[in-house]
Amino acid sequence: MKIGIIGLGKMGYNLSLNIMEHSHEVVATDVNIEAVESLSQEGGTGVSSLSEVVEKLPTPRVVWLMVPAGEITENVIQELKSLLQPGDIVIDGGNSNYKESKRRAEELIGQGIYFLDVGTSGGMEGARNGACTMIGGNKEAFQVVEKLFKDICVENGYMYAGESGSGHFLKMVHNGVEYGMMQSIAEGFEILEKSSYDFDYESVARVWNNGSVIRSWLMELTESAFSKDAKLSGLKGVMQSSGEGKWTVETALDLQTATPVIALSLMMRYRSLEEDTFSGKVVAALRNEFGGHSVVNK
Amino acid sequence: MKIGIIGLGKMGYNLSLNIMEHSHEVVATDVNIEAVESLSQEGGTGVSSLSEVVEKLPTPRVVWLMVPAGEITENVIQELKSLLQPGDIVIDGGNSNYKESKRRAEELIGQGIYFLDVGTSGGMEGARNGACTMIGGNKEAFQVVEKLFKDICVENGYMYAGESGSGHFLKMVHNGVEYGMMQSIAEGFEILEKSSYDFDYESVARVWNNGSVIRSWLMELTESAFSKDAKLSGLKGVMQSSGEGKWTVETALDLQTATPVIALSLMMRYRSLEEDTFSGKVVAALRNEFGGHSVVNK
Repeated sequence: MKIGIIGLGKMGYNLSLNIMEHSHEVVATDVNIEAVESLSQEGGTGVSSLSEVVEKLPTPRVVWLMVPAGEITENVIQELKSLLQPGDIVIDGGNSNYKESKRRAEELIGQGIYFLDVGTSGGMEGARNGACTMIGGNKEAFQVVEKLFKDICVENGYMYAGESGSGHFLKMVHNGVEYGMMQSIAEGFEILEKSSYDFDYESVARVWNNGSVIRSWLMELTESAFSKDAKLSGLKGVMQSSGEGKWTVETALDLQTATPVIALSLMMRYRSLEEDTFSGKVVAALRNEFGGHSVVNK
Repeated sequence: MKIGIIGLGKMGYNLSLNIMEHSHEVVATDVNIEAVESLSQEGGTGVSSLSEVVEKLPTPRVVWLMVPAGEITENVIQELKSLLQPGDIVIDGGNSNYKESKRRAEELIGQGIYFLDVGTSGGMEGARNGACTMIGGNKEAFQVVEKLFKDICVENGYMYAGESGSGHFLKMVHNGVEYGMMQSIAEGFEILEKSSYDFDYESVARVWNNGSVIRSWLMELTESAFSKDAKLSGLKGVMQSSGEGKWTVETALDLQTATPVIALSLMMRYRSLEEDTFSGKVVAALRNEFGGHSVVNK
């Protein structure tokens, strides 16, 4: 197949190489001209605009977006809407909110254009060597491109998830689960670090990765991190988040579903962003008010 | 080596087969005579008492306990103390509390007997085909039996963890991490189940196991469970626990360490044991008191 790729960031670039390695052709563009040129050197067709991507594709066109969720994705899709024709297929492989994906699918199908919302997991390494994808949207459109997913994913690593939004919904929940798993692993090492024992954390992660119940890719990444910095002493424990954990919790709230561990994992990330907290001041002040307990002043 | 095994339950029996498969000899006993006879048929030496186990072992003797933590483990160790000689090695492969293991190591070394506290992970299948073990205690005693651990564990699946108690401490924390990971996975599927999408959970677990960030042995077990019962409709969501999660949280409290996700995973297990809660009644009553909100009566 000949695939249009919009966005040659870490994920899109690696994905393009993966696609080309499987005997498909790639026509790609990005605002970053260096990435476009680099891809051309790798055998892709780098172009400078969306309209050029569309021009160079056979019909039905398949255009895969790998751009940041939100405004950029929206702008690209709006522009594509005016460039594409009925029967063409737009794939959003980014981390878009599933509600947006449902809306976009409805908007595009109004013009006969199919929209597949694709949750992509596995990080850069997965994008390059074998991803994991969850695909929502029109089933016939999915079948047109199924071979592509089979090629770029690990074995059993793609799934047609159902109607529009379901691919991004699954990916969102996947990320929520990831938050909880990561926080749990992290708390385990916190206890080890606070204990009186002197554990070598790389060794601990390694033994936990070999035969234990908690062996997992995240534990392998933990082992890798400790192998580079035995106590992670070069890092601050600031835990950023990129939105999907928040969406998972918002969805749980919409569904009135108890998901305390995923919610708390998100809250712990927020807590980590602050050196000090206002809530901490409030509790300290109250203890002082009722019991005369000492406070720590600035 | 010739190893004494005390306890031929699911773990001890499978471990014995594993040990024998690696050209070691096993002398074993259990209160369950059938298990003892069955092991004899498999080529082990089944005997009917601790003293017979001890008699049949060459010095220094190596006696591995695989019995329930607590009173039974304590009784066996007290009896062994009177049967063993200086230089002998007692291995506790069960889920004992690390504080008990520290105490037992001190007690036994008073008589010149070495005690290794061994956290064992991987379930029955691991015990049979390749376990994961974390070993605490005297390092020289560990070195005497290291070959045994190398043989019965998966590659890189054993670790000398440090002084007495450290093996069971690591296993305890491992189980705490396991609680959080399991609860997080479970909450993810809870959201899927409450959503308007109609996901096939076995397929979801399968795709998440192939290339995704959350791929893990626990997710493989999730896939296996859904393959047998697509909606787990044959089960009630009662989550038992066997003590190590509680110890992890108690330890975190002793160390004044924030581990909210592991703690909450434990609390959610306790919650699952009750059909109704007194706290629920209290909140319902209070809402009725201040706001006249309706309550659900029995």
